[in-house]
Amino acid sequence: MAEISKGVNAGKLASNVQKRINRVQEKMMQKLGKADETKDTAFEEGVANFSKQMAEGTKLQRDLKAYLEAVKTMHECSKHLQGCLADMYEPDCFGKEEMDIITEDTDVLWGDFHQKLVDSALISVDAYMAQFPEIKARIAKRERKLVDFDSARHHFASVQKSKKKDEAKIAKAEEELGKAQKVFEEINYDLQEELPSLWNSRVGFYVTTFQSIARLEEEFHRELGKLNHNLCDSMTKLVEQRQTENATSKTTEKSEVAANHNVTAESGSDITKPASKDARMRREESGIEASRMEYFLSLKHHFKAMSINDDYAQLDYLTALQ
Amino acid sequence: MAEISKGVNAGKLASNVQKRINRVQEKMMQKLGKADETKDTAFEEGVANFSKQMAEGTKLQRDLKAYLEAVKTMHECSKHLQGCLADMYEPDCFGKEEMDIITEDTDVLWGDFHQKLVDSALISVDAYMAQFPEIKARIAKRERKLVDFDSARHHFASVQKSKKKDEAKIAKAEEELGKAQKVFEEINYDLQEELPSLWNSRVGFYVTTFQSIARLEEEFHRELGKLNHNLCDSMTKLVEQRQTENATSKTTEKSEVAANHNVTAESGSDITKPASKDARMRREESGIEASRMEYFLSLKHHFKAMSINDDYAQLDYLTALQ
Repeated sequence: MAEISKGVNAGKLASNVQKRINRVQEKMMQKLGKADETKDTAFEEGVANFSKQMAEGTKLQRDLKAYLEAVKTMHECSKHLQGCLADMYEPDCFGKEEMDIITEDTDVLWGDFHQKLVDSALISVDAYMAQFPEIKARIAKRERKLVDFDSARHHFASVQKSKKKDEAKIAKAEEELGKAQKVFEEINYDLQEELPSLWNSRVGFYVTTFQSIARLEEEFHRELGKLNHNLCDSMTKLVEQRQTENATSKTTEKSEVAANHNVTAESGSDITKPASKDARMRREESGIEASRMEYFLSLKHHFKAMSINDDYAQLDYLTALQ
Repeated sequence: MAEISKGVNAGKLASNVQKRINRVQEKMMQKLGKADETKDTAFEEGVANFSKQMAEGTKLQRDLKAYLEAVKTMHECSKHLQGCLADMYEPDCFGKEEMDIITEDTDVLWGDFHQKLVDSALISVDAYMAQFPEIKARIAKRERKLVDFDSARHHFASVQKSKKKDEAKIAKAEEELGKAQKVFEEINYDLQEELPSLWNSRVGFYVTTFQSIARLEEEFHRELGKLNHNLCDSMTKLVEQRQTENATSKTTEKSEVAANHNVTAESGSDITKPASKDARMRREESGIEASRMEYFLSLKHHFKAMSINDDYAQLDYLTALQ
């Protein structure tokens, strides 16, 4: 059994090798102008269109993928940038909650946009492109079968023209020509139908794809525009709130300064800008500790003025004060 | 002259080296707990805020730059993707002009958006960040001057405590302490003012920057949304126009098929999709050349049916037909 299979395979291999040799010979003869070549200009134009269509489709597929990557990158970068704004907001800061919602909505919007682009455009582009390799392979097969047909045609002509008429040989050559013609015609007929049909589907496919993209873009940009509007509003409210808070804190601060001279230096730094709630809290927390430096410096001046120069005398003086 | 300058430089160098040795000694003594260290918790908090603010600002600067890069990339990718759609439009295709205008407007919009982001956000972020290195250097200088001050303070205390009272030495130490205190106080006073002021400017700066960005984004996305809407409309019109054209071409095609049987195979492929204007033009241009293959194949059948098998007889038959 294995021997038979081996024999069949060897026979098939030899036949394939012979076919290839015949094709090379036929092409060589055609190139040398010693044998005519069957030409179908319309079909060749169809193949040229097919190649153009495939190249354009490949470019579309590549560019769409790059665009999707860019969307992903811009989503990430926009998230990081908005994170910088979120970092500025202290946990109890006015408008933080609104800001967090906008940030989250923006994130979801970008993610959805990417996903929808994949679902509505990339998947259909991939499906469209999946047609090409199989048709390309059939075009190459048709090309080979046409060479076989031309070869059979020339063989038939040569045995017919031969001086010594061998009817059996002529009949066999004719039979082979018939076979080659049938094989070629079958594959040729399908492609004659498919190539123009595929070419004509091109505009419809592009329109559908780009309309999907444009609709998604339109919706995405409209929504993102709105979110940015809300973000702007939220920040305006924050500024207004800070202005109100600032006016209140200015009054409080004045009385604080009067009550505790030790914080003068720090309060003094707030001349141009209002002290934030945060800064005030910090001051309250740090208390006397915060003013230790000023306290020390003023003591130094005091000791100098009182001429208490000895360390022990200074210590005694301080103990007496407590 | 050169000798004097050399001597002055050498003296300055020696003095700087001595200063550094003193600082190292002082810090060592403080770390070992053998000398007290002047602490200013409020100032340290100010420095911590400064560091936080600088780190946040550096992140903002980096993230904004990355965002701008992403905008550029997305602009490029969007341009390439739209180029794929433009490639589909033949030069005389319906709506090509409108499509070209939308493509150009989209390109300009992206470019403007990027430029405006640079002008309104990046430049101000860069200016904001430019403040930090100089203040950072002054904080480090204050730190050194504080160590000098502590060192002078301890030196003064030690000469005072010395059993053998040397009034000249004490006076010199006191003078040095006074000097160190003055140098420290000057730099300290400025920073005491500047750090909280800089910290308080933070929210205002972020709000201004992000409001600029959000306004630009809002405008950009609104306009881009509109352009996508127009693009969608333009393609809808193209589809409608193709449907009308298709209806007309179907009628023309039927008569073409009846008049010339040779183009059957090609017309037959248009069963599912309408033949485009382009396809029809191609067919007209290629004429009989396009149907040479079918002509050859039908002749083969004809010769077979008529039993004209000899090449010369076939040639004679064809010549008689012309």
